[in-house]
Parts: sequence; structure tokens; C-alpha cells
Amino acid sequence: MLSNILLINCPDQRGLVFKVTSILYNKYALNVIRNDEFVERNFNHFFMRTEFSGEFDREELLKELYEVLPEDVEIKLTDKRKKDIVLLATKEHHCLSDLLIRHAFNELNANIRCVISNYDVLEELTKKFDVPFHFISHEGMSREAHEAAILQTVQQYTPEFVVLAKYMRILSGDFVSHFTNRIINIHHSFLPAFVGANPYAQAYERGVKIIGATAHFVNNDLDQGPIIAQSVIPVDHTHSAREMAQAGRDVEKNVLAKSLRLVLNEQVFVYRNKTILFE
Amino acid sequence: MLSNILLINCPDQRGLVFKVTSILYNKYALNVIRNDEFVERNFNHFFMRTEFSGEFDREELLKELYEVLPEDVEIKLTDKRKKDIVLLATKEHHCLSDLLIRHAFNELNANIRCVISNYDVLEELTKKFDVPFHFISHEGMSREAHEAAILQTVQQYTPEFVVLAKYMRILSGDFVSHFTNRIINIHHSFLPAFVGANPYAQAYERGVKIIGATAHFVNNDLDQGPIIAQSVIPVDHTHSAREMAQAGRDVEKNVLAKSLRLVLNEQVFVYRNKTILFE
Amino acid sequence: MLSNILLINCPDQRGLVFKVTSILYNKYALNVIRNDEFVERNFNHFFMRTEFSGEFDREELLKELYEVLPEDVEIKLTDKRKKDIVLLATKEHHCLSDLLIRHAFNELNANIRCVISNYDVLEELTKKFDVPFHFISHEGMSREAHEAAILQTVQQYTPEFVVLAKYMRILSGDFVSHFTNRIINIHHSFLPAFVGANPYAQAYERGVKIIGATAHFVNNDLDQGPIIAQSVIPVDHTHSAREMAQAGRDVEKNVLAKSLRLVLNEQVFVYRNKTILFE
Amino acid sequence: MLSNILLINCPDQRGLVFKVTSILYNKYALNVIRNDEFVERNFNHFFMRTEFSGEFDREELLKELYEVLPEDVEIKLTDKRKKDIVLLATKEHHCLSDLLIRHAFNELNANIRCVISNYDVLEELTKKFDVPFHFISHEGMSREAHEAAILQTVQQYTPEFVVLAKYMRILSGDFVSHFTNRIINIHHSFLPAFVGANPYAQAYERGVKIIGATAHFVNNDLDQGPIIAQSVIPVDHTHSAREMAQAGRDVEKNVLAKSLRLVLNEQVFVYRNKTILFE
Repeated sequence: MLSNILLINCPDQRGLVFKVTSILYNKYALNVIRNDEFVERNFNHFFMRTEFSGEFDREELLKELYEVLPEDVEIKLTDKRKKDIVLLATKEHHCLSDLLIRHAFNELNANIRCVISNYDVLEELTKKFDVPFHFISHEGMSREAHEAAILQTVQQYTPEFVVLAKYMRILSGDFVSHFTNRIINIHHSFLPAFVGANPYAQAYERGVKIIGATAHFVNNDLDQGPIIAQSVIPVDHTHSAREMAQAGRDVEKNVLAKSLRLVLNEQVFVYRNKTILFE
Repeated sequence: MLSNILLINCPDQRGLVFKVTSILYNKYALNVIRNDEFVERNFNHFFMRTEFSGEFDREELLKELYEVLPEDVEIKLTDKRKKDIVLLATKEHHCLSDLLIRHAFNELNANIRCVISNYDVLEELTKKFDVPFHFISHEGMSREAHEAAILQTVQQYTPEFVVLAKYMRILSGDFVSHFTNRIINIHHSFLPAFVGANPYAQAYERGVKIIGATAHFVNNDLDQGPIIAQSVIPVDHTHSAREMAQAGRDVEKNVLAKSLRLVLNEQVFVYRNKTILFE
Repeated sequence: MLSNILLINCPDQRGLVFKVTSILYNKYALNVIRNDEFVERNFNHFFMRTEFSGEFDREELLKELYEVLPEDVEIKLTDKRKKDIVLLATKEHHCLSDLLIRHAFNELNANIRCVISNYDVLEELTKKFDVPFHFISHEGMSREAHEAAILQTVQQYTPEFVVLAKYMRILSGDFVSHFTNRIINIHHSFLPAFVGANPYAQAYERGVKIIGATAHFVNNDLDQGPIIAQSVIPVDHTHSAREMAQAGRDVEKNVLAKSLRLVLNEQVFVYRNKTILFE
Repeated sequence: MLSNILLINCPDQRGLVFKVTSILYNKYALNVIRNDEFVERNFNHFFMRTEFSGEFDREELLKELYEVLPEDVEIKLTDKRKKDIVLLATKEHHCLSDLLIRHAFNELNANIRCVISNYDVLEELTKKFDVPFHFISHEGMSREAHEAAILQTVQQYTPEFVVLAKYMRILSGDFVSHFTNRIINIHHSFLPAFVGANPYAQAYERGVKIIGATAHFVNNDLDQGPIIAQSVIPVDHTHSAREMAQAGRDVEKNVLAKSLRLVLNEQVFVYRNKTILFE
């Protein structure tokens, strides 16, 4: 049986851990496998993640938790089942390849329901792994019409998360609003440096000694959503802009894979444009 | 007021978090600032660290905890007060310098009560920072007599922890037994590789591409105690053995400083020759 | 036109760079694109790597170099053409997947001529990428007979390099002697620590805080050949042995890919069981 | 005898290495210890660094080099002698402490001629190490007058390099013009992110997962001079802004020390707002 995961966040007050564990243990004799709490000190906000196993009535448990916890609490009760995800890509293969391989070998806690792209470059790769590929060209379409077509295709799979695996078009606020804190993007540089186009050319021009990548949730403000994971690798003057980009790709795919692992295992809270990670 | 820290470890069973928070919250209305738990799955052992503030009777609280927790529980109730430590060194200054500087600027959660060395090389440095220095030469003394002299000097300061800041003599099991899990050593390489003498020469001979350092508690088995922190830096063929050692020194002092921060903040459990860190 | 690469190593003496560049520039007016030299100080050994373009007679150029350079010089004159390689694997896919993907997208400076394995687990994956797969089971065969079968298959492709992409069987000195400094292995830990079987179990038992991987040339002494690349990632007490191994896989594939890039670009000298890298 | 260092940069053309080594070897029979070249491909610019020993006439050697090399060549002929440096600091001790300690133990290839600060906070520390300390308060003075006083004090030591060891005041273009590519600064974040005040507060607000530091030469454009070295450390949601700053300090001092090692060993070229490093 898959373990259950209980995610709670609310304004902090005394006794929250006691109140929650009192219900889990006293009422249901559930077996807590792992428990993490954190209190954000600036705003006194409480976060708790509990993995547990045992028999319980879902509606009843939620009702009892809502009764003892503060009014504006957010509770998510889920489990470790594989989640449905949809991938968006453009032409670069490295993040998509990595996720397709992990998926093929059952190392991604998700079902990749489909890949959608505005080019057909990655169709052959995707089909090798028996994943449906939707080629939705943006040519001859308005931005709005293209996005609407993408949205419709995504929604037909009702994914829990949408992963931008190097999808190079900007999504509108309207699109994003359908998947609040459920779209994950990999940004090809070290946020908040080099926001915008051609970050590796920018990095090369600047003569940086480190190249990085940032995985983050997408919100309305381009590249400014809550950061999930970041990493870097060293570069130097011998790297051309193209070689910096090549070097960056390995970081990008590793960071995206790490952020997906955290998100799919329900180890991530979003609070005030930041993430709380229970790794 | 300094927050209190409660460290509990015992065989796992259901309801442990509930039982502890029940006492802290229900009986004493203490304010939990941070709470961490971990269950080691191989041996089903439970670890809990709680930081809390508020009024309580120390003996009563301990008594109540012992009553509800399993028989073979280990409980440590301490606080964030600065702990007394004693440093042992030989001739290399880099770890000692780093700790003396942090101490002088109030960045080490400890009182360095004294420095003891089998050479007088570091006396001038130590005295600059108004820390007592004991020069106990090993020349003309048996190993036993020398160690006895060191032990006597250490004990006169009743330190909570003994830090081997590049102390190059092996301590006997007898010495170590006076300070179980309270002696911290920095090993000049990446354990368990290159145990023993001249690790940098060994690393150079092997042509390694990475140099590391390991901070660990000392037990009877040389360099085999529970690891607290490890880190590495890249090296290459242009590094001589001497330059590898130089490069290693920066890692050594950083790793030792990190491990001391964890230990002095009571974030470290030792269990079956490993550490559990609540960072 | 592909640039040429000249690799020279010999006992050091004055004027070696002058002598070589004198021939390249004075006699042939060749265009040096990049030049690297290094003198190993312990044995006073000279290493030089020159990338150049231009017209020249191969035999004549080599003759002139041998004339001016010390008697026991080693000279290799090659170019940036793609080299033929053969991959050996067993059951784990992560290194093989990574190389097949890079190969498919023309990011590996090599032709993967075939994959050979003692299991058929990875056949489906390999065939997706239109690379020949040879399943040579070791069952019911003596070690010698099996290795002979492997050797015969490898040799029929006359590869420049043989890559052990998680090939879990030990190769005999005889096998290795056919490919001196031309077999690259990825070792599933941080050499020279944890040599031998089950390194992640060993690492877990030891409670390490870092997991690493080492890519090295293979020689007769198991896991002791010249190191090409090493890297690490942090782990902690929350990682089970299985999770340490999972974490290790990402490092392994990255380190193997890096070492192959260096080797295939002719940036690696081997000297006295170490590598000199001109990155 | 200290080895000599020859630094040459000029537009690339064929035969440059030959021409230089021809003079060094043929005319003077000098012994080249280490030689590095690099050609920047975008602007076809050539960089060469040669370490050599032997007898030679300085003026004559330079004259001969200028004769064979392109007209707009830049040549620097120096040696490994300790260089005079001056440190500027404000209130934070960590970079200053680190440099004073390295200096005291002869690990910095420089003479720290003095420390200058706009506060007296670090006077006691500096004097422990017998280094002159100049307290030049900015209170009650115009920015121009204060900077003039600083400049006058710096110049009286005729330093080869000026090190801003957490000097928190902005230097004018006029000040900088006295020391082109000879002022080294450590920036308390990861350039070009978070330029300006309170970078750690900015980083905390942004919820970054990595904190970095950048050492760079100072030019007129605040924090935009050629980058010499960069490094990062991981952070997470448990770090307050103050703890991020603390974590950042260890990176800052390490990065500054590394950049000084490179600069003092004459391993750094500056070209078009970037550095070429021969490490």
C-alpha cells in the first residue's frame, strides 16, 4: 500500500504538531513514517508534511483536521501514487531525453501522458518511447490562438503538473492561471541573472566563471516564480558561448530532474513566491 | 532567553511525536520553535530534536518524558548557551587560525578555554587572541606519559567538546573513552580513502582529480568514527603534492568549521557509527 | 577541414617548444589554433598538445619531428574526426542511455559501432537508437570462453576506444593488453575508497556525506588505472543505500560523459598511471 | 633565484609562439618552466604566459621581443617576487582576517603594506598582526575629500594592487583610473545578480537555493569589472537573510583568496572586460 502524505500550512500557533499528531495517532493509530515541520519566522507561518500509513476515512480525517486547525489553513491529503504530467518542448532535446529515459525505466514518479511541441523536431525521439506527441505549430497562428490550442491539448490529459522541458515560448497569465504552482520551468541560466533571451551569450559576454540553471514554478512574472532547485558548473575563458550553452545543458537537465523529484514526491510548499522544501 | 533543545532517540513506535508534544504543549504550553524527526528504517530507530521556549521545571519535564517514552530512550535536555571547548593542535595553523578568528568575533557558539600543543609553533598566534596556550612537548616522554599530561590539562577545563585542529598524534582508546562522541577531528583527506600518513602524497601519487576533507567524531578505530561533514575541491595534474596539501587546507578548515557549528548547535545525533544531522 | 592534433611527450629539455613550433611554422607555415604544454616536475617529463590547420605531408612532418626531438619521444598525430567506439554494459541503463542519446543527437565525437552485454536487458533500448546490440551471455561458459567471445566481437569493429558503461564483469589482463589506455571505465564510487563490490552499501554503512564517481582507464590492477575525471554529490542520513545508488547514477553518467569528451577530443595524456588533461 | 614571468598579448598571427621561444631559447638559452597560450577566437587575440629561469639582459630581451611581435603588442616582464598590496576595509572582518592570517604565515605572495578603513572597528585585529592601520573616517567630510584622503594614503605605499576586502564605499572613476586593472573587489553575491545594496536580503526575498561570491577587477561601472573568480554554496528556506549572509562570508573569503593567488602569481590577463586565467 502506498503511503499517504498530509501537507498542512497555516499561521503558526502553539500546539499545532500536537493537535495533528493527536488526531493521527490517538484517533486513528496511524503509523507516521516521516514528519517534517518548519516555521517561517518573518510571517510566523507553519508548514508540516507527514507521511503515514494505516486505515482511515479520508473525509472524516480532513474534517477533524479542519476542526482543530486555524481557519485559514491549507490542507492537502494525497499519496505517493504516480501523477499524470504533460511535457512541453520546442527544439532542444536534452531535458526531454532525460525525462523520457527516466520515465521508460520507471525512475520518474509520474506518467508522461504526452509531449506537446511547436516544432516536430522531437517527434521521432518521443515516439521511440511510445509517448504521444502533439505537434502544434505556431506558424500562421496568432499567439492567442496557438496558446489556446496548446491549452486545449494539455487539458484533455488533465495533468497534475505541466513541465516546460525547454519550451521556448512565453505563456500568458491566463494560461498560467489554469495551473497555479503546477507548471515547472527550467531556466537556462542562474536566476535572477541574465533574465530574457540568449542568456549564454550574455554570460559569455560577461566573462562569468560559473554557469547555472534554475528550476522554478511559473507565474505571471516571466522567470520570477518560486525557485525549486538551482545548480552551477564552472566555466572559463576557453568556453565559447556555444560551449557554455553545451555545458549548461547538463546542469539544466539535472536541475529539472531534481525539481521534478521533489515536486512529484510532494516535498514542496509554495509560500509568498518562495518554496519550502522537505528533502 | 536562550531556547532549550530537547534531543530524544529510542526504538521507534507509534505515537512518539504525539507523546512528546503532548507533554510540551498540553502540560507546559511550551512554544515549539523548530521540530525535526527522523526514523532510521534499517533498525527502526527514532530521532527527535525540538527547540522550544517557555517556563518549565527541568526535573519534572524529564521525569514525564521518561514515563511515556520507551525504556531504553536517550534524552538530552540542553540549551543554546555557549559550550566550553578545548583545542589540540600540532604545527599547522590553518584550522586553529580559523577557529580563533571566529571565536574572537563571536561567531563560534563556544568558549575556547585553551589550546594545547606538542609544539610551541602556534603559541604566538594563540596568544594574540588572549587564549591560554599549553605547550606539552612529547620529547623525552613515553607516549603514555605524554597523553596523560595532555589529558590532565584538558580535564582541568572540563570541556564539553575536544577539537583536534590538526593534532597529529594518535589518541589511545583510553583517552577517547573519557570523551565519547565529544572529540571532533578533521582528517586531511577524503575518508575512507588514504587512511594514514601523508594522504596528500598518496593522493598525488594516485593522480586524483578531487581533494577532500572529513570531519568526524573520534573513536578507537583510527579515522573511522562517525562522519559529521565532508567536502571536496577539484585538483589536477598541475598540482604538486605540496599544492594539493595547500588546496586541501582551505577545505579542511571549512569542513571543520561546519562540523563544529552543527555539533555546538546540538544538531547531531550519533547512532551506530553514523551521524543523523538536523541541519 | 578538421583540425589536426599533435601530441608529444618526452623527457624535458630546453627548447622543445621552439623546436616543434619551428617545424610547424617555419617549414610548413601551419596555423596553430591552440597550444598547451606541461612539464611534470618529479620526472622532468614534457607534454605538448597542438591543434593546427594547414597543408602538410604526414610522413615528412613526423620524420622531421622525430629528428629534432629526444630519442624516446612519443608522438601521436591525429585529427578531430569521429572515432569508432564500442560500449560494454550489463543491466544498468543510465550510462548507456546517456551515451546513446548524446550519440543520437550528434553530441558525442564518436561512432558507437555496437553495444555488447552479458544480459539482454538493454537490447530494446539500444535498438531504439539503431545501434547493433550483441547479447553474449556468460551463463554456461567459462570466464575465459566468455571473455574470448566478447573480445572477438569487439575486435571485429576495430574500435579506437572501448567504453565500460557499467559493465559489471572483471576483464583479464590479457583482454586489457589488447587496448592499452584505450578502455574507459566508470567506477561506482569515489576511488580509491570502497574498491570492490557493493560500494553504495559500503558508503551507506560508513555514513558518508558525499557520493562520488570516477572515470578511469583500465589496467591490470582492478579499479586502479589512471583517473580521468571525478565528481561528487552530497548525501545524508535520509538516503538509504538504494537512494545513494540512485543519486550516484547521475554523477556516474555525468563523469563518464565528461571523461569521454576529453578522451575523444585527444585532450588526455597517460603518464605513470596518471593523466595529464589539457582541458 | 625567482623565476621570471613573461606576459604577452597581441592580435593573433602565425608563428607567435615560434618567434617568442626562438628568442628565449635560441638567443638566451633560457629554461622555460611553464608555457601557456590561448587565442581568443572572436577577436583573434593571442595571449601567452611564460615562466622561465636563466640569465638575460632585461632591456635587450624586451627590445628583441618588440621587434618580432606585432606593433600593438602588450608585454609585461615580471617575476615571482612578493608584490606590495594595500587593503581597504570597512567593518566586516572575514576577508581581512583571512588575508592577515595568510600573510602572517607567509601564504600570500604579497606584502600587506597597510590596512585603510573608514571605521576603526578592525584596528585591533590588524594591529595584532603588526600591519599599519589607517583610520580615515568619512564623517564630516565630503565624498570627494574622503576619497582624496584615502587615495593619498594608498599612494604613499605605491602598491601594485589595491584589495577591497569588504570596503563598503563606492570609488569614483577618478580613483579607479589611478589603478587600472589593479583594484580587486569581492562582491557579496553572485554577479550580475543582485547588484547594489543588501544583496543577501534580496537573495532571501527571492528564495534562492544558492549563494555566491564574485571577485573582480574594479572599473567605472559599479560591480561590472572583469570577473576573476566565482563560487557558490547551497542554501535553503531554513536560512534567514542573516544566515545567508553568514554562509556567504565563507564563500567570499575563499573566492577573494583564490583571486588574489591568481593575480599575485601573474596568471591573469584582462581583455575586453573579461579575464583570461592561466591556472
